[in-house]
Amino acid sequence: MRTRDRILEASVKLFNAEGVARVSTNRIATEVDISPGNLHYHFKTKEEIVEWLFRHLEGRIDPLLDDDAPMRALDDWWLHVHLSLEAIYDYRFVFYDLEYLLREYPRVATRIRRLTLHSLQSVRRQCGELARSGVMRASDEDLEMLALHIVFTGTCWLTFANVLPDPTRSQPPSGLAAYQVLSLLGPYLADEPAHYLHYLRSKYVR
Amino acid sequence: MRTRDRILEASVKLFNAEGVARVSTNRIATEVDISPGNLHYHFKTKEEIVEWLFRHLEGRIDPLLDDDAPMRALDDWWLHVHLSLEAIYDYRFVFYDLEYLLREYPRVATRIRRLTLHSLQSVRRQCGELARSGVMRASDEDLEMLALHIVFTGTCWLTFANVLPDPTRSQPPSGLAAYQVLSLLGPYLADEPAHYLHYLRSKYVR
Repeated sequence: MRTRDRILEASVKLFNAEGVARVSTNRIATEVDISPGNLHYHFKTKEEIVEWLFRHLEGRIDPLLDDDAPMRALDDWWLHVHLSLEAIYDYRFVFYDLEYLLREYPRVATRIRRLTLHSLQSVRRQCGELARSGVMRASDEDLEMLALHIVFTGTCWLTFANVLPDPTRSQPPSGLAAYQVLSLLGPYLADEPAHYLHYLRSKYVR
Repeated sequence: MRTRDRILEASVKLFNAEGVARVSTNRIATEVDISPGNLHYHFKTKEEIVEWLFRHLEGRIDPLLDDDAPMRALDDWWLHVHLSLEAIYDYRFVFYDLEYLLREYPRVATRIRRLTLHSLQSVRRQCGELARSGVMRASDEDLEMLALHIVFTGTCWLTFANVLPDPTRSQPPSGLAAYQVLSLLGPYLADEPAHYLHYLRSKYVR
């Protein structure tokens, strides 16, 4: 693996485990077993590392948001949600440290806001297609609210999972997020998709 | 005002504006115009200040959660939600810095988890009463999910509001949180409360 990729890999591992604020670039250099000077040659600042990791996250989520293949069944949409939540979990430091990144790293903050807006627009469009295909019955106002709540859940659930009481926390947190997103759709689904939803949910919460 | 209260008042103002991590006890002493030694006489550590502020927040939320007056109309419940969201907004640093507090201040973390559990149990009970009074139609599974989502929204919405695009951010964030909580109830309400909900929502989003 190239040194640059080894630095990024070690960084995401350390950031996820300890938070961005606590991990210094020297610490990352030690983890990769290179000199601080060598790390500096690849990335001038910690913000630059965070920015590149965020680009990797965008590289996984943006294609899911841009996919305009028709959404005619709950399953078409569900796969997109599932893969997005997996990407979010792999880069979970972004969401744990949201407030810190917004405050300290303006370039990353701009990218986070762009991705949020992109997510809102795409989820809104995808839910609209599900409504047009008869999978859901929902007004335009319902669809706006649903999109907002789904993106909110994807963005903040991992943080919330940390304050939940123990029995709930024994679930894998990305599974709980998936379960919550599915639950939001519940009351709007037609009968057949509602049964399928019940089955999907049972796969996420044991 | 007693020195102790002036310290707490200055701290919540600084924490809300800049985050707990960025504000030192010396900075707080300067703001209150006392010596660091005098501040230390009242509070040994920054954690102690944060813990006392969190007790004040509990003092505003716990009575709302414990109130077991009957809930026969949406309005009975709504007042509790509104006052809780106001308290959350007044101590918003807790929710912006959730991850930091959980990691750095174990005693505060324990109190945060206790308050979350208390909120889940009470909101679940209150929603159950609304269902029994015929205000909502919802299964036990729906009620569990609703309680979880309402407490999640109260806990994390202020953070999410910071990544929303500008037009949405021009709303006062505690109003947006209230709007989102109300929206969650929407699909479960009987006809008459549904009309009232529509009216309540219109008061929160201009």
